[in-house]
Amino acid sequence: MGEFLEVVRERRSANKFLKGIKVPREDFEAIFNDLSQAPSCFNLQHTHYYVGETEETIKELYEASYKQYKVLTSSATIIVTGDKKAFKDASQIYEASKFLKIIDDKEYDDILNTINELHESGGASFQHDEAIRNASISSMLFLLLAKDKGWDTCPMIYFDSEKVKNIFDIPENEVPVLMITMGKMDTTSFKVRGYRKPYNEYVKFK
Amino acid sequence: MGEFLEVVRERRSANKFLKGIKVPREDFEAIFNDLSQAPSCFNLQHTHYYVGETEETIKELYEASYKQYKVLTSSATIIVTGDKKAFKDASQIYEASKFLKIIDDKEYDDILNTINELHESGGASFQHDEAIRNASISSMLFLLLAKDKGWDTCPMIYFDSEKVKNIFDIPENEVPVLMITMGKMDTTSFKVRGYRKPYNEYVKFK
Repeated sequence: MGEFLEVVRERRSANKFLKGIKVPREDFEAIFNDLSQAPSCFNLQHTHYYVGETEETIKELYEASYKQYKVLTSSATIIVTGDKKAFKDASQIYEASKFLKIIDDKEYDDILNTINELHESGGASFQHDEAIRNASISSMLFLLLAKDKGWDTCPMIYFDSEKVKNIFDIPENEVPVLMITMGKMDTTSFKVRGYRKPYNEYVKFK
Repeated sequence: MGEFLEVVRERRSANKFLKGIKVPREDFEAIFNDLSQAPSCFNLQHTHYYVGETEETIKELYEASYKQYKVLTSSATIIVTGDKKAFKDASQIYEASKFLKIIDDKEYDDILNTINELHESGGASFQHDEAIRNASISSMLFLLLAKDKGWDTCPMIYFDSEKVKNIFDIPENEVPVLMITMGKMDTTSFKVRGYRKPYNEYVKFK
């Protein structure tokens, strides 16, 4: 376990990984156990992770990524999806919270009404945005948790969504939001981090 | 500066804040300096932060949030936006990278072509999704950096986008993605963290 700012500062997107390394299942377990704490809108927990870790799955994902070499060298390649229909399962999550006495009956009814109203009035476009928003929030925490366990990552957006859905049999209500390659960075292909804007170019105070 | 997992585990969405506390400017500076390291697609740095910190701005944001009380008690309320047209500024970012000799002339041309092709073939819907995706990734890191500096936060989605755009004079090409309230949590309204699904309900290996 590292210092917080050290993990943040040392995490950077990997270009290429060392081949032939597996991610031990206990590392994934530790990462996902902490990842569960990620915030999500109304605690709907929209995000799903599909972890490709066998040679066969990684080859399929390599094809689906338009043959990006880093997929082939990764220890695991993960598809992160957001569930557009997560609000339909709100009752399960809030029944558990009621059972644990985190909320009472009235709070349960109020929150379920609010969730339904918001998602129904927002319609398909809001549900789609929510899927992307919440899966992306979760993904950033995944990248940091992986780094804290000694794993490098690279979030990617250039892949064929339909192929990826077929590989993992992803249901229609889930939107593939990111591909994440994971492994030990091959530092022979190390590059300086790309130029970053100074913060006064993207922050305004009022 | 805390231990990484301690910061992750202790961060939780605040319900209510202690009134009358300001965020010192040096805390924001430290947070945003580290936030610049957040990954973004093609390093396009789509995300903008609009920080409401005066009593007047916070009152306006309270109205724009349909009068959610936690906004009124916050030390700062922030609107995070994603720029749909960030790819149009790719040349500036990559010229800086070329100047710093991070990339050469050929890499510069290749990457600019790829960025343009991807965003033009994806069209408005891809550009919109990218704005949400990248701003959400950045937001998760903001929440953790704030916690590391001793600030509690709550990411929120229930607000009037048009009102918020007017308050900060946000340009049309930016999509408001999240509202984040920030302050010192009022622990008298402390609630147990909501129920979280066990990870085997949202992770599949193949």
